[in-house]
Amino acid sequence: MNQYISDNKDRFVNELLDMLRIPSVSADPKFKQDVLRTAEFLAQKLTEAGADKVEICETAGYPIVYGEKIVDPSLPTVLVYGHYDVQPADPYELWNSPPFEPVIKDGKIYARGACDDKGQMYMHVKAFEVMMRNNALPCNVKFMIEGEEEVGSANLATFVKNNREKLKGDVILISDTGMLANDVPSITTGLRGMSYMEVEVTGPNRDLHSGLYGGAVANPINVLCQMIASMHDENYHITIPGFYDNVQELSQEERAEMARAPFSLDAYKKALDLGDVQGEAGYSTMERTSIRPTLDVNGIWGGYIGEGAKTVIPSKAFAKISMRLVPNQTSEEITEKFTKHFESIAPASVKVVVKPHHGGEPVVTPTDSVAYQAAAKAYEETFGVKPIPVRSGGSIPIVAMFKSELGLDSVLMGFGLDSDAIHSPNEHFGLFNFMKGIETIPLFFKHYAEMSR
Amino acid sequence: MNQYISDNKDRFVNELLDMLRIPSVSADPKFKQDVLRTAEFLAQKLTEAGADKVEICETAGYPIVYGEKIVDPSLPTVLVYGHYDVQPADPYELWNSPPFEPVIKDGKIYARGACDDKGQMYMHVKAFEVMMRNNALPCNVKFMIEGEEEVGSANLATFVKNNREKLKGDVILISDTGMLANDVPSITTGLRGMSYMEVEVTGPNRDLHSGLYGGAVANPINVLCQMIASMHDENYHITIPGFYDNVQELSQEERAEMARAPFSLDAYKKALDLGDVQGEAGYSTMERTSIRPTLDVNGIWGGYIGEGAKTVIPSKAFAKISMRLVPNQTSEEITEKFTKHFESIAPASVKVVVKPHHGGEPVVTPTDSVAYQAAAKAYEETFGVKPIPVRSGGSIPIVAMFKSELGLDSVLMGFGLDSDAIHSPNEHFGLFNFMKGIETIPLFFKHYAEMSR
Repeated sequence: MNQYISDNKDRFVNELLDMLRIPSVSADPKFKQDVLRTAEFLAQKLTEAGADKVEICETAGYPIVYGEKIVDPSLPTVLVYGHYDVQPADPYELWNSPPFEPVIKDGKIYARGACDDKGQMYMHVKAFEVMMRNNALPCNVKFMIEGEEEVGSANLATFVKNNREKLKGDVILISDTGMLANDVPSITTGLRGMSYMEVEVTGPNRDLHSGLYGGAVANPINVLCQMIASMHDENYHITIPGFYDNVQELSQEERAEMARAPFSLDAYKKALDLGDVQGEAGYSTMERTSIRPTLDVNGIWGGYIGEGAKTVIPSKAFAKISMRLVPNQTSEEITEKFTKHFESIAPASVKVVVKPHHGGEPVVTPTDSVAYQAAAKAYEETFGVKPIPVRSGGSIPIVAMFKSELGLDSVLMGFGLDSDAIHSPNEHFGLFNFMKGIETIPLFFKHYAEMSR
Repeated sequence: MNQYISDNKDRFVNELLDMLRIPSVSADPKFKQDVLRTAEFLAQKLTEAGADKVEICETAGYPIVYGEKIVDPSLPTVLVYGHYDVQPADPYELWNSPPFEPVIKDGKIYARGACDDKGQMYMHVKAFEVMMRNNALPCNVKFMIEGEEEVGSANLATFVKNNREKLKGDVILISDTGMLANDVPSITTGLRGMSYMEVEVTGPNRDLHSGLYGGAVANPINVLCQMIASMHDENYHITIPGFYDNVQELSQEERAEMARAPFSLDAYKKALDLGDVQGEAGYSTMERTSIRPTLDVNGIWGGYIGEGAKTVIPSKAFAKISMRLVPNQTSEEITEKFTKHFESIAPASVKVVVKPHHGGEPVVTPTDSVAYQAAAKAYEETFGVKPIPVRSGGSIPIVAMFKSELGLDSVLMGFGLDSDAIHSPNEHFGLFNFMKGIETIPLFFKHYAEMSR
């Protein structure tokens, strides 16, 4: 198989570049046609790779691309999940090359979606082709690639509920996470959940002249800043009543185990050009980004933000605020607590509206499962070292949904790096990582099929 | 003269509408040609009205329109100041009719600049025409109409310094303020100064994924909110060290005198649809907007502000913050104290940049001057009641500059209303107010000339 991989490497990369040229931004309606084109592109590639029953399944939102290869119903079935939509690319001016005109530089592919998740998802399509062309597909495989992951997978759960038979399988395989370093492979065993809210604060019923009214009327921007500021205390604990009630505290042993993963605070600060890190008192940086919940403002706007100066007290101010959740918090619980709290701290001088966007549940995946063991063995063979299990700070809400709706665990074989700048300008994905994925995935299938006997 | 005014009323209004159709937004470079066209329009109208030596005086920025009529060098000279530039019109979607397509509804002209200051400035051009056509100009007049008032009059002081001889006069006459109500005329005797700052807070050197980094890295939006929130205490006092050092406290007598001006808190709250007012403890709403300094955020932005949800920790967050000043604060002093304080409260986890926009000095104008007395008499004749002297919360920085550079006091004959929504969507100016101005101004000239003998 490795011969076939090296013979076809350039084509594999070029096909990914073609997909990256389609701006499939699911958050912004103006890219609708591009998102749909990406689904068609993908269906085409799955068919060419050898999949049967390839189908672009309509949903209330963007479609889900399905395809399968059943070699023998008595063999286990791996259900591959990924997504073909990408994050918005703005701010465009911070990209060194246009986000949807991929370029290869220093062995890395630069483009929005290069890693998250087009690059990692496409490794599976090509690994599938490799196994097919070499008559080496050792078990059944099904693909379910969605187009709404970056906006909360609003229609995926319904699709899964309505297609339990079609999606029947033994394990879910996902590459939408990262590893510690190219020489320190790791497998993600935990993910944070999320509650994402949008808030609106209204002061006066119209924009006012800040000279004639300043000092006597609540300025919704100042008030919003006050409310946001009050949601962290001086130790960066979140002050929403009951926020930590269901947070699972790890044992000293578990924390000591986590601390064994290689990490350099100096390198971390240097990479981000930080004067200092900042976070919840009593926890390390690794812990703050994995086993602890957070509250971050992802966007804020209000008043005059154009050139020059405008002396206005705006009528409204807005913010997008998301909270990352850990076991055993639930997005429903936290969304409710946030809403209740935000409304309760609003002064009489303003009106507030709280609108929940999407949510997702935190998960911890078992490391003693056949699937995890098979994945670990595959990494060890291609990287030459045992992968480290790590809990990630990111969220893949659908992992919890798959468990509850299909009763299946997921194995998270990520090949990206934290430095890939996903969700940021200049997102990229190493050719090394892309190819390592294509090499490692068939080995997972091999070991998983064998160990499942 | 009143016959001539009523005979020409429609033409006076139509000329104003023509000027309002030119979007002379000085804050936004894309309107540059329109600002220049407005200057030409005005020069043309001054000439038609009978002014001599009409000139469009170049500056480093937008030009100043000059014109004069010297009837007798031995008579006093009134120097009329106004501005032909306007505030930005956004948010456009909140206008009931396009801001630069003036419409007359319920006896009011709706357009950006209808009141501030095209409408009020043009009353002087037409009042001048009235006096000229009726051979009733009792003293000399000079016009100085600038195009950068809404962006801080950056080049006016230089122009004044370089043209002391040309601008020689006895009093400055300005209509860029309001009166209490159409049946409660008032003359502004005080103005607040201003320091206008723009701040930038930088956290990580690039936008980050809020899942992978959230909790461990300072979010510049959260930090900016913290910093802004900390600048007011629970009594809405401003916490910048030394901020109140030079604030002139009024005597109980002066405050009692102020409190005599008609004001209904219920009507005020109802007009703005406020659940409650909010401001500095120990002061009334009228005092908070006139004799007390303020700190307001005029604009804030950072992170993802588009449709949908983006899980990002932005690299930067920004705010425009202005402070209204009262005697004897100075903009230089407050700008320095704000900058020092803002830098001092920034945590080690971020970098901040503070950039001052424009500033202006507070003023209190004398009520015992000939000019004030002449103005009061003119109002009394046209409105039938004595005008009330009022200190306004707004800023006309150049009033202090005229005093220091030309040694001249200003008399502020405003005919607008607080409800005119200047700087807001649906700015308007009453036809009643426009015409009352044209009637009252010639009477001021008459009384001023007589009382100056």
